[in-house]
Amino acid sequence: MTILDESRLFPSDPDTRSVAKRLYSGVRDLPIISPHGHADPRWFAEDKPFSDPASLFVVPDHYICRMLYSQGVPLEQLGIGSTSLEDPRRVWRIFAKHYYLFRGTPTRLWLDFAFQELFGLDARLTPENADGYYDAIMDKLKTPAFRPRALFERFRIEVLATTDSPLDSLSHHKAIRASGFKGRIIPTFRPDPVVDPDFPNFVENLACLGQMTHADTAGWQGYLSALRQRRLEFKALGCTATDHGHPTAATADLKPDSAARLYQKIASGTGDPDERELFRAQMLTEMAAMSLDDGLVMQIHPGSFRNHNTRLFQRFGRDAGADIPMPTNYVHALRPLLNRFGNESGFTLIVFTLDESTYSRELAPLAGHYPCLRLGPAWWFHDSPEGLMRFREYTTETAGFYNTVGFNDDTRAFLSIPARHDVARRVDCSFLARLVTEHRIDENEAREVASDLAYGLARKAYRL
Amino acid sequence: MTILDESRLFPSDPDTRSVAKRLYSGVRDLPIISPHGHADPRWFAEDKPFSDPASLFVVPDHYICRMLYSQGVPLEQLGIGSTSLEDPRRVWRIFAKHYYLFRGTPTRLWLDFAFQELFGLDARLTPENADGYYDAIMDKLKTPAFRPRALFERFRIEVLATTDSPLDSLSHHKAIRASGFKGRIIPTFRPDPVVDPDFPNFVENLACLGQMTHADTAGWQGYLSALRQRRLEFKALGCTATDHGHPTAATADLKPDSAARLYQKIASGTGDPDERELFRAQMLTEMAAMSLDDGLVMQIHPGSFRNHNTRLFQRFGRDAGADIPMPTNYVHALRPLLNRFGNESGFTLIVFTLDESTYSRELAPLAGHYPCLRLGPAWWFHDSPEGLMRFREYTTETAGFYNTVGFNDDTRAFLSIPARHDVARRVDCSFLARLVTEHRIDENEAREVASDLAYGLARKAYRL
Amino acid sequence: MTILDESRLFPSDPDTRSVAKRLYSGVRDLPIISPHGHADPRWFAEDKPFSDPASLFVVPDHYICRMLYSQGVPLEQLGIGSTSLEDPRRVWRIFAKHYYLFRGTPTRLWLDFAFQELFGLDARLTPENADGYYDAIMDKLKTPAFRPRALFERFRIEVLATTDSPLDSLSHHKAIRASGFKGRIIPTFRPDPVVDPDFPNFVENLACLGQMTHADTAGWQGYLSALRQRRLEFKALGCTATDHGHPTAATADLKPDSAARLYQKIASGTGDPDERELFRAQMLTEMAAMSLDDGLVMQIHPGSFRNHNTRLFQRFGRDAGADIPMPTNYVHALRPLLNRFGNESGFTLIVFTLDESTYSRELAPLAGHYPCLRLGPAWWFHDSPEGLMRFREYTTETAGFYNTVGFNDDTRAFLSIPARHDVARRVDCSFLARLVTEHRIDENEAREVASDLAYGLARKAYRL
Repeated sequence: MTILDESRLFPSDPDTRSVAKRLYSGVRDLPIISPHGHADPRWFAEDKPFSDPASLFVVPDHYICRMLYSQGVPLEQLGIGSTSLEDPRRVWRIFAKHYYLFRGTPTRLWLDFAFQELFGLDARLTPENADGYYDAIMDKLKTPAFRPRALFERFRIEVLATTDSPLDSLSHHKAIRASGFKGRIIPTFRPDPVVDPDFPNFVENLACLGQMTHADTAGWQGYLSALRQRRLEFKALGCTATDHGHPTAATADLKPDSAARLYQKIASGTGDPDERELFRAQMLTEMAAMSLDDGLVMQIHPGSFRNHNTRLFQRFGRDAGADIPMPTNYVHALRPLLNRFGNESGFTLIVFTLDESTYSRELAPLAGHYPCLRLGPAWWFHDSPEGLMRFREYTTETAGFYNTVGFNDDTRAFLSIPARHDVARRVDCSFLARLVTEHRIDENEAREVASDLAYGLARKAYRL
Repeated sequence: MTILDESRLFPSDPDTRSVAKRLYSGVRDLPIISPHGHADPRWFAEDKPFSDPASLFVVPDHYICRMLYSQGVPLEQLGIGSTSLEDPRRVWRIFAKHYYLFRGTPTRLWLDFAFQELFGLDARLTPENADGYYDAIMDKLKTPAFRPRALFERFRIEVLATTDSPLDSLSHHKAIRASGFKGRIIPTFRPDPVVDPDFPNFVENLACLGQMTHADTAGWQGYLSALRQRRLEFKALGCTATDHGHPTAATADLKPDSAARLYQKIASGTGDPDERELFRAQMLTEMAAMSLDDGLVMQIHPGSFRNHNTRLFQRFGRDAGADIPMPTNYVHALRPLLNRFGNESGFTLIVFTLDESTYSRELAPLAGHYPCLRLGPAWWFHDSPEGLMRFREYTTETAGFYNTVGFNDDTRAFLSIPARHDVARRVDCSFLARLVTEHRIDENEAREVASDLAYGLARKAYRL
Repeated sequence: MTILDESRLFPSDPDTRSVAKRLYSGVRDLPIISPHGHADPRWFAEDKPFSDPASLFVVPDHYICRMLYSQGVPLEQLGIGSTSLEDPRRVWRIFAKHYYLFRGTPTRLWLDFAFQELFGLDARLTPENADGYYDAIMDKLKTPAFRPRALFERFRIEVLATTDSPLDSLSHHKAIRASGFKGRIIPTFRPDPVVDPDFPNFVENLACLGQMTHADTAGWQGYLSALRQRRLEFKALGCTATDHGHPTAATADLKPDSAARLYQKIASGTGDPDERELFRAQMLTEMAAMSLDDGLVMQIHPGSFRNHNTRLFQRFGRDAGADIPMPTNYVHALRPLLNRFGNESGFTLIVFTLDESTYSRELAPLAGHYPCLRLGPAWWFHDSPEGLMRFREYTTETAGFYNTVGFNDDTRAFLSIPARHDVARRVDCSFLARLVTEHRIDENEAREVASDLAYGLARKAYRL
């Protein structure tokens, strides 16, 4: 008995399903390229066992906590806000009791995959079997095969990129390298803490950046050179990309004088909201300029209203599952940057969205024109069977497949990585299978495209 | 011979269709919960026969009139604007002549259902059989089995909520109760006439509210207490919910002093458009506060540009089929209310939209987080096979099934109620059937969900 | 062997495919009505052979050039910006080398159709067969059967409307008429050069309009009468429609005095951006008023950010493939015009969009109400299998089929016209086939609708 059927996510029409299965068989075992995610490098530096099923699966997964919270489970009951779980088995039982809430969600698919494929469980999680599940997982977690490095190899991960603050010493990354572990784990330069004036402790962060780099971040030139230096230090540890999580996609192209004056205001913490937004916008263009020099691929992830729930933010801080997507404009927002660097074929800018209405209206037309531009995959709430399928349906006809960059798992749930790539591969093969049965492409072409979507495009776009 | 096939609306793929049929067989005969609609309580209070086919089907149905008008039929020819139909058979013939216009629309499905299931007709309406149709329907309408109360029972309606003005004496509801009729017909508190400063006769309405409640609606406190009192009077007649049809979803959370000052301006009819909008916004939050006290479920139906066609409005008044959806923002708009009451699990706020781009971008993420929030079903123009299916496809992966509230028929066309619920049940079963054949949920889970979507969730969300 | 399968674009479900094939067999050979496009009337006036495959297929096709450019091919290498191709075979080879980029795009479908159906080629274009392709096409182009007029007849085009400047002498159209060629080729009045103050050389264009019409375009009345006169001259050559390509759908209804004053400012080149936008808006309403007089059908094509890429615009001018869609509002924008003329059933206004989120939210509700309003087909980036299907899925339930106007190929790629109509017919038949197998319409109804969508509605809406 199994929890998951081998034909899952393939269309039920027999001809299309047959094609999808054949395509999938060619990509199923390809290595995983994970060019954008939030795994903790400490896991691989220390290689300690994971502590228990609740701390592993429930507490750090926003998808789970937000759903339980939406149905009246207090976050405190899940151990959110505590430094360690007092009674992980109790958290697990609460989770099991509410597992039916995840019907029809990608979370269920990811979890069932891990339960079955990693832990050998063969019946769906229920309140009744919650303790059995807990014990079975706990037993495995104690074994060497379930340590982070062993799992990394078992998952056939070819590259795993983490996301790191410019103020991070990268000590875990250095420790991984020093340890002789062969897994390729690389940092990603995410400068929001020193680029977004609304980031907590922004002004202190600038001072810290100055100390780390021995640069004078009190001035615009010193600030820029500190950033350049950190980028190179990241690059020296294998980093190939930057990432920018701004509220909007706004970019700007100020004259150097104006930019320097703006920085003075921002660095002293006295900018108003418009000036802070303009500064973020200008910094995206500055980052693009640096990418032209050092070759780092640039990613923009805009459009999330962070910490929408004030009470929760005050109680639990950032990342409590209350970030909500907003309408996002790209056509005007990206223009200053694109007018400066859009025609540079040596520069790669990968753009993501949480606003699906922009797929066919703005992003596919932009990516189908500008040499620098590529479309990031379906992101966050849209990294799901329906969401991934819509991404292909809405972008392919205008941007083609080759202006996209494969899949990002974008997760801090390490054990869900194989499941997420598996879902994406199945959905892409299903989309391609429909094109084949509708005679829009040939099956041999589809085979090639499937492999590019699962592996080749990510490798190429992220310069891995 | 039949007009409608028993397999209608199920996907044509044989496996998926089989699953859909099995799921549907489990929900087809469940009682109807109609927690939001516009049936006229007078029908059930008086229990008079309906007069004729045209007055029953054509004149009051905006979907029909707007389509005919869009193709050049003057509304006068349909008897719109007259107090009674001079020649209902002539209206019926015009309708029959244009019935082909409804191909591919839900109106056709609803009407064909009523023609076949209620009136036993077995051929599609055409100009040729228009008179035969008219006579057959007319004959039935004269029989006791076609009186409103008899139909109510035949339709197996467990609860029917009407929509009522706060200035309504609720005499029909009282008469229904007094009559001994066992059907559960309850009012819904829709305070727009005294809450929306742009409502016709707003200032007079405030005075009227004061008279009804013996409260001093010239002042803020008196106004609020009048509203509280009317809510309780509605509740005493079985009401479990309020409804708010504002142009936008804007909410506000003013300090009491500011709110009181704003009310003075608004109550004197001197507010400017921004102040009127702010007042509506504040009143949603006030209504939420009252819901916390009296337990009424709150519904927000925003996003319609009312009476878009000025000439028609001048000639025929409100509700002439010229209301047009607008882009609607929820993320910023709902925040003041949510920041005050969003974490209260004793409070239920059901939000609807006419802007489908918000399903996956805003509404599912919000409802998948806030304990108070639930998603209303596909509404108005989107209460249709494609619209209902998109609702599930765009919301389920982020909000799940259990942050939705089942189906609302939202109609003033009493005879379409069974047809509308039947369409919704068939579409939900079709969606679930696809999840089953794609191995995303098990069929026994789907059976449970189908029943919840058809019956259980509405009962629970509306506290029925 | 063939490149294209005869069942292409039909759903793979066997029952649905069978219905789709039957429906398609009834419309496949209907004549082509092409009421909106960009074919060059000179081709038919001169009837010269097309010069070579690259000049015919690659250089003038923005879909091709933008995709190649997005993947790093410099436009210069494609001969863009040159007056003639130095080495067309070289361009063709570059194109063949990158042909894989078009997988999953409509461009591939259109080209493969032309290669197979017109040129008898039977293997997909590859870098290897590029020279063979070139020679085969070149050989055919030299034959009389491949002259423009012969192709026009072979394509069974019943009417072909071109798009023409109000400053065009229409000499080619006159030459076609004078030549005795029986093909019905008619102009369309596209007054943007003298109506949009942001059009290049706008002020000079006004003077030129005055010269052509002997009207005093220095004043508002003279300007309007010059436009009226040109419309009649177009009409005398068979024109039945106007077209308006404004950045937004804004309309205005100024009092005559205000309009005249605004014109003075605009005509002197001194209006600010708001005034220029207001002038465009007012001119749409003026054009509608003229349509009521002369019976020309009015088309609005809004929502494109023209020449988004400044560097490319400076180097290559307009229409270099860098036009990007923007969010577009219709509900408020069209209201001034609709409030004046929306209820006139003798007036036809066809509205297009590049913002698919407006299909179900704004356009279908508007077109399902206003007697004058019709929905133009899926346009530009959305004229594709997925895009055409979404158009039906999102508009039919509210606007029905009969508030739409059939298909527009909207192309300057003459050889793609049969392919584009074939794709649209296949997609519409597939949509209808699904409605049939889901028992939402009967097959005999679907047959009638299919014919209307392929032929009848365009003829009627454009008064052909």
